[in-house]
Amino acid sequence: MSLEPHQIDIIGYCAAFLTTIAFLPQAIWSWRTRDLSGISLGMYSLFTAGVGLWLVYGLIIEKWPLILANAMTFALALSILMLKLRHTATEHKK
Amino acid sequence: MSLEPHQIDIIGYCAAFLTTIAFLPQAIWSWRTRDLSGISLGMYSLFTAGVGLWLVYGLIIEKWPLILANAMTFALALSILMLKLRHTATEHKK
Repeated sequence: MSLEPHQIDIIGYCAAFLTTIAFLPQAIWSWRTRDLSGISLGMYSLFTAGVGLWLVYGLIIEKWPLILANAMTFALALSILMLKLRHTATEHKK
Repeated sequence: MSLEPHQIDIIGYCAAFLTTIAFLPQAIWSWRTRDLSGISLGMYSLFTAGVGLWLVYGLIIEKWPLILANAMTFALALSILMLKLRHTATEHKK
């Protein structure tokens, strides 16, 4: 396809915008309610690690849509994972 | 960084593996139980569209980790979206 580099970037940024926006409500919900019972620690750890690796991959191949999308999702996912870990630790103490 | 192209791909494939594996249980659960009440049609549509665009982006920049991860997630997400749409249509008929 004969697309200009900036046109290719626009497609990437649209993808980044959509998947980040779709992830936001769950992040905000988890953060607000602190109800993390519906979140699987194992699966969420895999997801967070995966997003972190996508960020590393994006940095190496120097593709800004990948970098921005995954930096934002990684920060949100990591903060929820921390809440979940604290929550799990509290449950164990009971 | 002085990484070989195949080493960069390995990082991408690890990222692809992790985020796809993390998405699978939810897909299998939705598919098996047909219980889609916990899934937001709006957010899921955005997510599916976003993954589809990541796939297009991956195809254009010819990065196989992006292509494989998003092709798989797109197929799964789209099938769940179809179930959800059918489910919503049935609800409206009642």
